[in-house]
Amino acid sequence: MTHTPPTDPVERLIDAFTRLPGIGPKTAARLAYFLLRAPDEVALELAEAIQALKERVHYCRRCFNVAEGDLCPICADPTRDQRTICVVEEPLDVVALERSGAYRGVYHVLHGVINPLENVGPEDLRIKELVERVRQEDVEEIILATNPNMEGEATAMYIARLLEPFGVRITRLAHGLPVGGDLEYADQQTLARALEGRHEFR
Amino acid sequence: MTHTPPTDPVERLIDAFTRLPGIGPKTAARLAYFLLRAPDEVALELAEAIQALKERVHYCRRCFNVAEGDLCPICADPTRDQRTICVVEEPLDVVALERSGAYRGVYHVLHGVINPLENVGPEDLRIKELVERVRQEDVEEIILATNPNMEGEATAMYIARLLEPFGVRITRLAHGLPVGGDLEYADQQTLARALEGRHEFR
Repeated sequence: MTHTPPTDPVERLIDAFTRLPGIGPKTAARLAYFLLRAPDEVALELAEAIQALKERVHYCRRCFNVAEGDLCPICADPTRDQRTICVVEEPLDVVALERSGAYRGVYHVLHGVINPLENVGPEDLRIKELVERVRQEDVEEIILATNPNMEGEATAMYIARLLEPFGVRITRLAHGLPVGGDLEYADQQTLARALEGRHEFR
Repeated sequence: MTHTPPTDPVERLIDAFTRLPGIGPKTAARLAYFLLRAPDEVALELAEAIQALKERVHYCRRCFNVAEGDLCPICADPTRDQRTICVVEEPLDVVALERSGAYRGVYHVLHGVINPLENVGPEDLRIKELVERVRQEDVEEIILATNPNMEGEATAMYIARLLEPFGVRITRLAHGLPVGGDLEYADQQTLARALEGRHEFR
């Protein structure tokens, strides 16, 4: 897919912005004209940050999270529990889990989910690398933390089956009501899962 | 206002994105991770488009619209009516009016409106340059096309008073119901203006 950018600089930037997700022509125009009026340091810092990202950031050779060096900071951290691997779809999921502060193990980033409608099969994801890790490393538990939707569930099920022969513990994140959420607004399936997963009140 | 960007490349790009209008931390993170996975040409084209914008785009010395050369394409176009000047707040307003195809004159971009609450006075806008144009050029009509809100009206009134001594025709864009709009959803003031401005049915 080749794409020839417009020659007019304003049009060219609007065009480049519209290629980002969730940014339509109107937002793109607003951003372009904002940058036109913004101080050089704001605009050029954005340009340089994009370039630095593409130059300096690669994927961790072990877990495929973003990394500047060969290993990501989490894989390189000897205080993390290297025998528990949390399998997630995207690097942003690692950020979310790290923010919770509740996880001390390591990760494995699939970079997507199995999605036949969008032509994404297991071979497009970092699944064989996960199997290789389980084969070679001393793994105790695999937490399947793909998203709680159809594709995420299917991917989790596929991976669970692949890893069965290795005899590691395979778990999935709990379903239930979000903390601070309102029962009234919870959807049927979440409520059903919250009921199924109910536990003794302590 | 100095601002030290974070050293981590992903954090740095998220930080740079959040400085754009309407982009919060979550959208910024989504965009940064999108660019991380996007082909180099998509990401680097955006970076280069920003740099080209800041390097190549300046303001027209006559009307202060965006321009690559000394004059913008509209001022440089001999087929445009150079004796009618439409005064707008922002370059994006020029884009909108040009899209309508209904205007054949030239423009004058103020780059803002008088807004005492935000400390923007007449001296911060391209108002004295407009007066200079009216003094020096052979101007027949000034269309005050600032936005139909309080600041836009006040700015239009201020400019109208300044230009009175020159004896040029000074007009304001019509108020009324938007085409394709619904009377039921029109606000009181728009309805009042639409009634005031009613004309013979042909």
